[in-house]
This record gives sequence, C-alpha cells and structure tokens, in this order.
Amino acid sequence: MSKPLSLSRLFPILTWGRQYSKSKFADDSVAAVVVAIMLIPQSLAYALVAGMPAEAGFYASIFGLTIYAFFGSSNSLSVGPVAVVSLMTAAALSKLALTSPEDYLFAVFSLTFLSGIFLLALGIFRLGFMANFISHPVISAFVTAAALIIGFSQVQHLLGISASGNNLLELLTAILGSLQDSSMLTLSIGIMAIVFILWSKSGMRNLLVALGINQSLAIILSRTGPILVAIITATLAYSLRLDQQGLQLLGDVPKGLSGFGVPKFSLDLMSNLAGSAILIAIIGFVESISVGQSLAARRRERIDLDQELVALGASNLGSSIAGGFPVSGGFSRSVVNFEAGAATPAAGLFTAILITLVALFFTPILFWLPRVCLAAIIIVAIIPLLDFSVLKRSWLYSKADFAAVTITLLLTLLVGVEFGISAGVFASIFIHLYKTSQPHVAVVGRVAGTEHFRNVNRHKVETFENLLSIRVDESLYFANTRYLEELLFKLVTEKPKLQHVVLMCTAVNKIDMSALASLETINETLESLNITLHLSEVKGPIMDRLATTQFFYALTGNNYLSHNQAVEDLNDKVVVMSSA
Amino acid sequence: MSKPLSLSRLFPILTWGRQYSKSKFADDSVAAVVVAIMLIPQSLAYALVAGMPAEAGFYASIFGLTIYAFFGSSNSLSVGPVAVVSLMTAAALSKLALTSPEDYLFAVFSLTFLSGIFLLALGIFRLGFMANFISHPVISAFVTAAALIIGFSQVQHLLGISASGNNLLELLTAILGSLQDSSMLTLSIGIMAIVFILWSKSGMRNLLVALGINQSLAIILSRTGPILVAIITATLAYSLRLDQQGLQLLGDVPKGLSGFGVPKFSLDLMSNLAGSAILIAIIGFVESISVGQSLAARRRERIDLDQELVALGASNLGSSIAGGFPVSGGFSRSVVNFEAGAATPAAGLFTAILITLVALFFTPILFWLPRVCLAAIIIVAIIPLLDFSVLKRSWLYSKADFAAVTITLLLTLLVGVEFGISAGVFASIFIHLYKTSQPHVAVVGRVAGTEHFRNVNRHKVETFENLLSIRVDESLYFANTRYLEELLFKLVTEKPKLQHVVLMCTAVNKIDMSALASLETINETLESLNITLHLSEVKGPIMDRLATTQFFYALTGNNYLSHNQAVEDLNDKVVVMSSA
Repeated sequence: MSKPLSLSRLFPILTWGRQYSKSKFADDSVAAVVVAIMLIPQSLAYALVAGMPAEAGFYASIFGLTIYAFFGSSNSLSVGPVAVVSLMTAAALSKLALTSPEDYLFAVFSLTFLSGIFLLALGIFRLGFMANFISHPVISAFVTAAALIIGFSQVQHLLGISASGNNLLELLTAILGSLQDSSMLTLSIGIMAIVFILWSKSGMRNLLVALGINQSLAIILSRTGPILVAIITATLAYSLRLDQQGLQLLGDVPKGLSGFGVPKFSLDLMSNLAGSAILIAIIGFVESISVGQSLAARRRERIDLDQELVALGASNLGSSIAGGFPVSGGFSRSVVNFEAGAATPAAGLFTAILITLVALFFTPILFWLPRVCLAAIIIVAIIPLLDFSVLKRSWLYSKADFAAVTITLLLTLLVGVEFGISAGVFASIFIHLYKTSQPHVAVVGRVAGTEHFRNVNRHKVETFENLLSIRVDESLYFANTRYLEELLFKLVTEKPKLQHVVLMCTAVNKIDMSALASLETINETLESLNITLHLSEVKGPIMDRLATTQFFYALTGNNYLSHNQAVEDLNDKVVVMSSA
Repeated sequence: MSKPLSLSRLFPILTWGRQYSKSKFADDSVAAVVVAIMLIPQSLAYALVAGMPAEAGFYASIFGLTIYAFFGSSNSLSVGPVAVVSLMTAAALSKLALTSPEDYLFAVFSLTFLSGIFLLALGIFRLGFMANFISHPVISAFVTAAALIIGFSQVQHLLGISASGNNLLELLTAILGSLQDSSMLTLSIGIMAIVFILWSKSGMRNLLVALGINQSLAIILSRTGPILVAIITATLAYSLRLDQQGLQLLGDVPKGLSGFGVPKFSLDLMSNLAGSAILIAIIGFVESISVGQSLAARRRERIDLDQELVALGASNLGSSIAGGFPVSGGFSRSVVNFEAGAATPAAGLFTAILITLVALFFTPILFWLPRVCLAAIIIVAIIPLLDFSVLKRSWLYSKADFAAVTITLLLTLLVGVEFGISAGVFASIFIHLYKTSQPHVAVVGRVAGTEHFRNVNRHKVETFENLLSIRVDESLYFANTRYLEELLFKLVTEKPKLQHVVLMCTAVNKIDMSALASLETINETLESLNITLHLSEVKGPIMDRLATTQFFYALTGNNYLSHNQAVEDLNDKVVVMSSA
C-alpha cells in the first residue's frame, strides 16, 4: 500500500495539473461558484462557533482550500471550517479561561498550528491507520452529540440573549436563566430564516423548474438559500435600522487579510493544547477521509490516506499562520462540490479566489448581517449531522456497539466534546477486546451420515464418549487464552471416559505466543490426565508459524487436515446422539 | 461460568472442611513443614526487598496464609511475600520520598490495604477477566526484568556496601560508585552461601539418597539449603563476632506480632498510591492464578478465578492490618507445596502456625543472621524467574510478540517496574489491534477440477475475468473496515472487465456495526460502477445478526452457502490461470 515518496506523490498537482484541460476548467469553475455560495456564510458562521471573529472564517477557507489544492489527492474534497471541528476548537479554548481577545487568537493559532504539525507527522510516518480505531457508530454518536451542542449554542442568537456553555447541561441552564430577556423580533427573523433556508433546499428547486429554468441551474440556485437570507436580512437591518430595536449585528469585519502575521510560540500554551490538537486533528481527518473516500470510489478514483494527512496538515498550518482556525474536509460541502462537477482540486483553488474577492471588497456589507441569520444558517447546516437512528440500529444489531454509542453520546452531551470522544474510543476498543476475550466456543458433533460438524446445542448430531470436539470461533491471543483453558478443563472434568480432545481450528486466524504457551499447558495437563490433544484444520499461515516451534513434537496427539478424519481415527464407536 | 454467590462459595473452607480426614491432615502437615522451611528465610528476605523490617515478612506470611485458607479455592497455592511484588512495593514507595520509618510503614500499610480492596472489588464485580489483557510473553519479560533488578539490588549486601536504585542504570551506577568499599569477608560468605544453596537443590538430595536416606525425605531435606545456610552463617557470625569485622547483621527483630495495630487512613496518600496498588494487585493476581490454575488442572481440580480475587484481596487486607506488605501466590513455593502433597488449603494454615511459633520464640536468634545470607537466598530464588529464552522464542515465532517483549524488558530494566509493565500491556494491546487492523486478505481462485479455493499468489488456480473472489482472514470490525474498503477498491480498479465481487467469509467470526456500514458503502459504490457484491459461506451467528438489518435487501448480489456455488453461478467461462 505504500509507494515511495516522490515529488509527484507529495504534490498531486504536478500530476493532474499537466493534464489540465479547458473542459476541466469549465467543470471546476461551476463547482467553485456553487461551493463559494455555500461556503461564504458558513465560513462566517463557523468562525463564530469557534469563538473567533467572523473574518477568521474567510482566512481559514482561503488558505485551507488553496494549500489543499497543491497537496490533496481527492478531486472532490472541499476543505475549510466545519461545524464539529469548530466546536472542538471552542471547547479546547474554553479550558484555558483566557480573557483578552489577543490571547484567544494566539491560543487558536497555537492549536491550529499543532494540529497541522500532528497531521503532517502522521502522514510522513505513515500512521494514518490510527484513524481506524474510531468506530463508525462512535463517530456517528459523537457527531450527533456535537451537532446538538452546536444547535443549542445557537439558541442564544436565535433569542437575542447571551447564554453559552460547553455541554448540554450548561447551555440549557444558561438559556433558561436568560429566557426572560428574549427578543421577539430576533426570534421571528430567526425562525423565518430557518424556514426559508429549509424550503430553498427542495421547494425552491421545484419552483424554479416549474418556472421553466433548466434542472442544473435550478440545483445551483437552490443552494443560494443561506446567502439570499443573509442578503435579505442584512438589507432589512440596514434599511429599517433594526439594530436600534435590539437586533444584534455582526458588526465590523476588517477588510482584507489583516489576520496574517508572523506567529509567536509559547511552549507552555502548546503543551496545554496538545491533547486537544490531537483530538481535533484525528476527528477532522476521519470526517475528511470518510467523505473523500466514498466520493472517490464513486468515480473509480482513489485517495491516498497518508497524502491526505500531509495535505490536511499543510492546510491547517496555512490556516494557522493566516489567522484562521482548524480546517477539515467538510461533509456536505464536499458532496456539493462533487455533485456540481468538480473535476480536480483546482475547483477548491477557484473557490478560494472567489472568497478572497468577497473578503477584499464586500466586508463592509457584512456589518449589517444579523447574528441570528448566521445562527439560522448553522442550525440548518447541522440537521443532516444528527443521526439518532444509530441508537436504534446499534441496539438491534449489536449490544457492544450500542454500549459504545450510548457512552459517546451521553458523555459528549453531558460532559463535553473532548471527554465524550475520548471515552467513546476507549470504550469501543475495550468492548471489542472484551468480546474477543470470551469467544464463542462450540462443542461440535457430526451430522449423521455426513462429514459436517455442528454445535451439539443447536443440532442433532452424533458425539462419542471418548472424544471431545471443540470449535473455537476466534483467533487465539493473549486476551482469550485463559478463558479457553478454563472452559476446556471444565468440559474435561465433565467427561470421565474422555481419551481425546480435538480442537477444530477453521475459524482461528492467528495463534500468538500466549496462545501457544496456553496450548502447551493444555497439552501437558491433558497428558497428565492421560488424554491426548489433537488439532484439526489448522490454516496454512498458522501451520508455518507453529512449524518454527517445538509444539508439534510435544503435542501428544495428531494434527489432522480435516476434522472428520480426526473423528474417524479416534472414536470408540460408542455413539451418543445430542438431544438438541 | 458464574455461579450464584453463596456462603459455601465465599468460604470454600465450608466445603473441604466438612470432608477433612486424618489422611489429609497427614498430607497437609508434611507439606506445611516443607513450605515453612522454605518460607521462613524468604519471608525475611522479601521483607527487606520491599524496604520493610524483616519481621514484617513473618506478619505478611502468617496473615496471608491464614486468611487464604478460609477464602481460597486452590488446594496448592502458597500465599505470602513474593519477589516481584516485593520489588514493586519498594518501587511504589520510592516515588514518595519518605524519610521516617513510621511514614514508610504507614505508606506500605496504605498500599497493601488498597491493593486488597482493589482485588476484592474485582472479585465481587466478577472482573477477573481483566487480568487476561496481560499477555504471557509480556509477563515473562516483566518477571525476568524485575528479577534482574532484584538480583542487582542484592549486590550491595553481597559486597557489604550501600548501593540502591529503582532500575538497572541506577543500581549499576551506585554499585560502581561504592565498589572500593567492598568487604571481602562479606563477599566470601555470600558466594559460599550461594554455592551451598545451589548445590543443596540437587547435589544434597543425590548425596542423601546415596547415603541410604529414602527418596521423599531426601527431597524434603534438600529444601533446607537456605535455612541451613542461615543457621550456619548466624552461628559463625555469633561465635566469631564477625560483625566486628564489618559483616552486616540483620539486627533486632522484635518478638511476637508487634506490627499489629489499628490502621490510620490518609486519603492523600491513598490517591498517590492507587495506581501502584492496582499494578501490584494485577501482577500478584496474574502470578497467583497462573500457578494455581496449572497445579489445579494437574489433579482435575478447578479454581474459581473470581473467588481467588476475593481470597487474595482478603489476604492482602489481613497482611496490611497485621503490619505486613502485599502478598500473592508464590510460584516456586506453590509448586513445592503441591509436590510435597498438600491436599487442602489447611496446609497453608499449618505453615502459618509454624511461622508464628518461629516469630514468637526464635526471633532473638535472627539478630545474628548476616544480611549477605539473605541476599544469597534471594539471588538463588530469583534464578528460576529469569527467562531470556522468551526473546528468542518470540523473535522466531512472532515479531509482534517480540516487540512487546522487548519494550517490556527494556523499559522495566531502564526506567522501572511500574513504567515497564504498563508500557508492555499497552504495547501488546496496541500491537494486537494494529495486526487485526491490517488483516490477511487473499484473492482466491479455484484449484482446477475441485471445489477448493486457494490464494492466487500461492497456488496455480483458475480465476475469471468478470469475477473477483476475496477471502478475508479476520473478523470484520471497526479497526479494519477502512483497510478492507481501500484494498477492495484498489483491486476493483485493477480489473476493468469486472462484474462480480464475492466476499468469502469462512474466517469471519464477527461483523460489527462499522463493518456493516462499510459493507453497505462497498455495496453502494460497486453498484454505481455496475458491479454486484456477493457474500459466501457466512456463519450462522453472523447471518442471524445481518438478518435483523436491511443489508440483504440492499445487497446487489446474492448470499451463497458455498463459495463454489457462487463461482459456478457467476463466472463468464473465460478462465485465466494464475501464474503461481
């Protein structure tokens, strides 16, 4: 899976750039416009979620997208501020109890920089597999809980009050405490904005098609819901001076790229933020490659996971130095980019150019943007992230997954994002190990007249008094060897006439050293009881490995190619039928 | 595996006590004498290893043995001070930098008490399986490294100098620094003691048998080596006043059970020692049940792991309150107990009575015992614990185990026992997860003329251009789903004429929710490429589980009972022979 490190691998742009064509340029340009329309309001909104000034969202988007275009291996991924990572940024910073805005900006720079370095390091050392240790249901539960927290964190802007917190309990307490200060004007604008954006997603498209506009243009226009709401509400606020009636506005957004500057470093701050930076890096990476991989596969393309780490790492370094905050490949934006026809990472570059133009020339207009409008955009954006069905699905499918899901969901909601995701990851690993430490072990017997062996408790099969056939449905490794030993000796004490034990190894994919030692102990102990131990149907790679040891010399019995052969060879002809 | 909690389960003595007979009493008495001969010098020696006054070893032995006799489920286990746990006690205490002996005693009480509570809690909540997460090779490596540290910690007494430390580096530095103060008298006595004890183990027995003493008495007498050395060196020290020539003596050992007292508690101290107490509890338990289980199995007896936790927990609580230190089932003493014929846990009770008599009446003699004699006893006792072969065996058998062994061995030696064992446990779990996250996946083809399918890279088999048969040799779970997806899409992009992918599931023991989601993604993605996905030979329990989901409705292909059936059904007759 690993290719040698080369310039063209490190810079995929050298490969796709050489084959760039007019038609690809056309495709990328259309996608860039569609994504920019979506990303402009989201950039501002997610900046506020991260606790940053709104314009930081522009810097993060512009530098994230541009740098990704040079390093990224996905033709569809749209890198920039995303909801969950922005929330995690705010959560990481809230622990530091910073007071001045300068300190906050500096801390966010450190966090973003660190997570960039961490991603780069994982990529360079080919450690992308570490992301695999977060299970799908845990990610679903975490994203759902994080989205809920984001949603509730926007309620304050919807009501025109001040009520923040790092978990659901804190948020609800704060909201209930200030409920009496609610502004009905703000709430009305907020609800109308939400309804309009929701309607625009499908209703507007149908309307436009009915009005005779062609399908693909209608789809593009239907994406303009959030930006239209922003324009309309800002115009209303300006023309009716709604700020004088208590409507909170976004206020001054500095023109240009003023955030860009020479970074300072504080080792103390960095060590305080290191844990958070690692979590942000991993969650951002997992979110990013999940969508990147599934979109690439739909066009028989492939993305290179280690290169994606390098690309995301570089994007975050860029965002940090530009005065942005952590970025990642956004789920919905990438899907939009893909569906709008993005052919190469150049689409992201063009999006960055469009956003730069907005940042340079249109920021004065943003002064009049009501904050409730951004809250409405965020609330609609997090709806697709909510997946409560994972609770029901995991309950029905696997109690182990359900336990991990519940732990992640509850702890994220009640304690906070960092604790929640960490607990979820540990829980899923622990539960997995626990399950494999108590494997399914079946005493098997022969279906009369065949060479098939089945569980004596499930099937009517023939067994023999002098013979115990055991099938272990798990690889043998340190966590389950003692369980197997104990179970085996229990079964042996129950059969007084026993002469032979045959371990059927069809489902054993691995025997580690602990298991080898355990098999040796079992062999010795059975020998002292005058019972011989046999193996059957051991797989090739395990045979190769066992052959390097003294095991087969010490084994009192044989190693049979087929289990039936073993039973034919060893049984005492006294057939006992199982009752099942 | 779990039985209801009953009085006879909690107190196994109620069961075996009712069937107690004269012949069992005779057997137990002989074993008690043999074990006491061995345990008396070891108690004193291990107390010094733990940094405790020598008499604390008596208290730990007496109370450990007595309480275990009431709660223990093993007829052979001999509970008391053991080398590794004593070293871990000293290591735990060294972190606290205590100065006064009273503080030290109090801290050891807290540590012993906590590890007793922890063991009891594990037993009550049936969490004994947690001990399974320490692999055999990691334990071997850890015990070897700990034994080496113990051995080097005795060099100071062998040389009559003062040189202590918590790891090999500290010890070697300290020894080299004080080497010029060595006492040749002490070293000579030490070397002679070591040689005599080593000789007594086999040479003395052979000599006694040659002199006409019967075999079993000879075996008992051959155990007296350490105690004979103690008596001889103490007599020499007394009669020749060797202390005036620089020989260090054990000094005053208080008579009776003066350590026994009402415990005090310090929450602060307890929380500082909690981590160490957990490590000591787990290592002690693992050592104890390893020997307990293998001895029980040799007589078709069984021990109850959760009851063993309760018994060891209670023994440690007893030892703590009596002024002792952490105890566990000792490996070599338990084997001696077993071989000397111990029939019930009463043997331990009788050993405790013998040691009590010594503690009450013979302690004045101990004043004259040279410390170098105890060092010699310890050095001989740790030799059987050294197992460097685990390095070679793991290197040959499994590089994964070798990595865990090396990490444990080196870090224990170079950093210390607590860091070493923790790193070893984490390393073995991580390596296991890493290996299963990159499972063996084979593209298989049919051996011509048969229904057998084999790896195309190992065997000359027939494959088909429109069909890809893949066998995954691992359960599918969160850590390997992304690997499988990526590998599959890579294989698919390599076969342009592909119409069908068949996943052969003979070795798949589990499909968790992440893997299910991944299979759904694979199915959808292949569908968008006009490739159908099929499964074959899915196991019963997995079928049951998948049947609760929508998976089989969404699956574009079929679920075949046998892989051959799938290939017969789907192939395009264009046979391609693999080159292997």
